[in-house]
Amino acid sequence: MRILIVGASGTIGKRVAVALEPNHEVIRAGRNGADVSVDTTSHESITEMYEKIGYIDAVINASGGANFKAVPDLTPELNEKGIASKLKGQINLVLLGQGYVKDGGSFTLTTGIMMDDPIPLGASAAMANGGVKAFVKASSIEMPRGIRINCVSPNVVQESWDRLGDLFAGFNPVPADRVARAYVKSVEGAQTGKNYEVY
Amino acid sequence: MRILIVGASGTIGKRVAVALEPNHEVIRAGRNGADVSVDTTSHESITEMYEKIGYIDAVINASGGANFKAVPDLTPELNEKGIASKLKGQINLVLLGQGYVKDGGSFTLTTGIMMDDPIPLGASAAMANGGVKAFVKASSIEMPRGIRINCVSPNVVQESWDRLGDLFAGFNPVPADRVARAYVKSVEGAQTGKNYEVY
Repeated sequence: MRILIVGASGTIGKRVAVALEPNHEVIRAGRNGADVSVDTTSHESITEMYEKIGYIDAVINASGGANFKAVPDLTPELNEKGIASKLKGQINLVLLGQGYVKDGGSFTLTTGIMMDDPIPLGASAAMANGGVKAFVKASSIEMPRGIRINCVSPNVVQESWDRLGDLFAGFNPVPADRVARAYVKSVEGAQTGKNYEVY
Repeated sequence: MRILIVGASGTIGKRVAVALEPNHEVIRAGRNGADVSVDTTSHESITEMYEKIGYIDAVINASGGANFKAVPDLTPELNEKGIASKLKGQINLVLLGQGYVKDGGSFTLTTGIMMDDPIPLGASAAMANGGVKAFVKASSIEMPRGIRINCVSPNVVQESWDRLGDLFAGFNPVPADRVARAYVKSVEGAQTGKNYEVY
């Protein structure tokens, strides 16, 4: 298959690319993408990316950020990053990309454990994750031409533990390679509307 | 208690007001609010509303809309209504209102069954609902001064069946009075971080 990975240089995206590369043509995208550049907060940038690469069988998104702030300090302005990047960035990859995905292809987005198991400072990211999860489930019943859509909800990964462990007290981090397998399942499997929890 | 209901003239908001009025002071808000006007898509309007009414014990939101479109016809622009109104409108009532809610007070937001049990044309609304549900759960662990936060997820209500029944084929509509009881539970009870499903 011809597979686009947005966020291919991130901790998870990198492992997803490694897992898929032996059997597929992988196109790496990101803010400074190896193959193609994209800013998922811009409609124009998303459309330009799809125009450049042409038809694909699968789109994976492993990009998207949010501000980490305690609720008393979280302003609508600070919350906007999660909305523009982690929520709309992902959903617009689907809305603007559905015409570029071949019949029977797939989208795989990324949510995260904090929507199910809240952590301090995580409300904005959780909001975005929850929005993506619900969109995936709801949109799966009417995607055109047999296109499937799933998301992967990773726990904090071992590779990020030094940087993020303080926020995830008591969590049991998982290897990014294990998370990558869920993306492979979404792309090569036949399910749709799922949120694969890798907890 | 002194209770603000945003969306107090809607099918559900009206019943919530009726349920609370015997025991509480109810302030009705909305686009053409009986007591105070508010446009929840505007930060300024939300803040003006809170400034006008002063301290309250509870904020209930039963307002917020989204475009109903099939995924192949859903554009980022059409999706924006759900984001601005049903998602950000509700969350900004919390972020901008937390300073106006008394110690131990509460917020109660509104989600909806289509995030759990998808319907055609419902992906944008489901997205907003899922974002609100996850925000409520995540923010509940760090709300200031013992303030609680919950949401209510109504099934389609009997009172809207003539208008909406076609979208909810096979659903079992519930009376709006039964939905209103979940808001009463959220306000007068002691739980936090819950999404009360009235299915």
